[in-house]
Amino acid sequence: MSDSHNLQVTKRSKIKRLPKRGSQERELIYNILDEALIAHVGFISDTQPFVIPMAYGREGDRLYLHGSSVSRLLKTLQQGVDVCFTVTLLDGLVIARSLFHHSMNYRSVVLFGKAKLVESETEKMTALRAFTEQMIPRRWEDARLPNSQELKATTVLSFPIEEGSAKVRTGSPSDDAEDYALPIWAGELPLEITPGVLIRDPKLTNEITPSSNLTNYRRGK
Amino acid sequence: MSDSHNLQVTKRSKIKRLPKRGSQERELIYNILDEALIAHVGFISDTQPFVIPMAYGREGDRLYLHGSSVSRLLKTLQQGVDVCFTVTLLDGLVIARSLFHHSMNYRSVVLFGKAKLVESETEKMTALRAFTEQMIPRRWEDARLPNSQELKATTVLSFPIEEGSAKVRTGSPSDDAEDYALPIWAGELPLEITPGVLIRDPKLTNEITPSSNLTNYRRGK
Repeated sequence: MSDSHNLQVTKRSKIKRLPKRGSQERELIYNILDEALIAHVGFISDTQPFVIPMAYGREGDRLYLHGSSVSRLLKTLQQGVDVCFTVTLLDGLVIARSLFHHSMNYRSVVLFGKAKLVESETEKMTALRAFTEQMIPRRWEDARLPNSQELKATTVLSFPIEEGSAKVRTGSPSDDAEDYALPIWAGELPLEITPGVLIRDPKLTNEITPSSNLTNYRRGK
Repeated sequence: MSDSHNLQVTKRSKIKRLPKRGSQERELIYNILDEALIAHVGFISDTQPFVIPMAYGREGDRLYLHGSSVSRLLKTLQQGVDVCFTVTLLDGLVIARSLFHHSMNYRSVVLFGKAKLVESETEKMTALRAFTEQMIPRRWEDARLPNSQELKATTVLSFPIEEGSAKVRTGSPSDDAEDYALPIWAGELPLEITPGVLIRDPKLTNEITPSSNLTNYRRGK
């Protein structure tokens, strides 16, 4: 069973390949989910697997997805089909002496479950706040809040963080013993998502300046 | 039919939601595939959808995937099951006056098809070179090449770039007409993947220095 510290290990969520990289720890899983901006959501429609990139938000032990009420994707998900929810943070390239041992450092989360339609207006607002916080912390205080017409036009689904796992690779390459003597550079190249220069909407009234959550924006630690 | 300029439009690859953002152009699709480092690969195993992050490489009109010969993932894919191959580049946050119109700028590719086991040693080497080029251009010239034992331990699959589409959002937010008068900052925050400082493998012989494809590493344009 899933509990307050660890997610459920089941047949489909058990890590078979390199299990030492795997974890069911909620804290690690929440950290990865909170740092990423996009999930890749997998589901089956007419025997065909689909993988669609989606924004999302987390509130406690559940994730929220949203989209237009007319979207085929949201219509399929809310039917209670099996979903695989995957998030990947790429932390760097692992540069080995042999091509065979090149790799990547990453943190990923794979969750299994079914999405459920959120019907209450209160929970919908909670979800919309979670999307906003995921994308830009404190933007909720600065922007115009959703009105009831916008709430109606938005389908919100909740997805439980209950079954699944994280997988993490860190550190330097592991080359074959005899390759360490080769005169080839090896190590890691860290990669991060960095913000560029803010671009003002050309239709913006001149005197408005962006607040510090935008000018000092950053992901990760 | 798929041709030299465009991918096939089929029932499963037709873009229904916001079709003006969609494209079947090979050139655009190749550019997106070449800039990304990780794909999210979806398939069905025992009626359950799985979405797994994977490195890949492109060579002409096909993609290559690889992994250990003992991996369940590779074993499932090589059985010729339907696969959905998705790649997403996050280009920035779209910051609107209303929370409802917040969005992201992105370029994504969704491909459909079946993977095929690559058996010839020559094509396997082509594929390994494509993985290397995808991750670090010209690393093939610097590192120790795969030997026949390593080739045997690696399962390589090819996947055709034939059916699917790209989807792209760019530019500033589109707010509701009456919201443009609000004193709320709006615009875009570009995001990019930037390399950090190279970390030497502690086991490296002292006099070796990294070559320019590592010291000047960058993704994208």
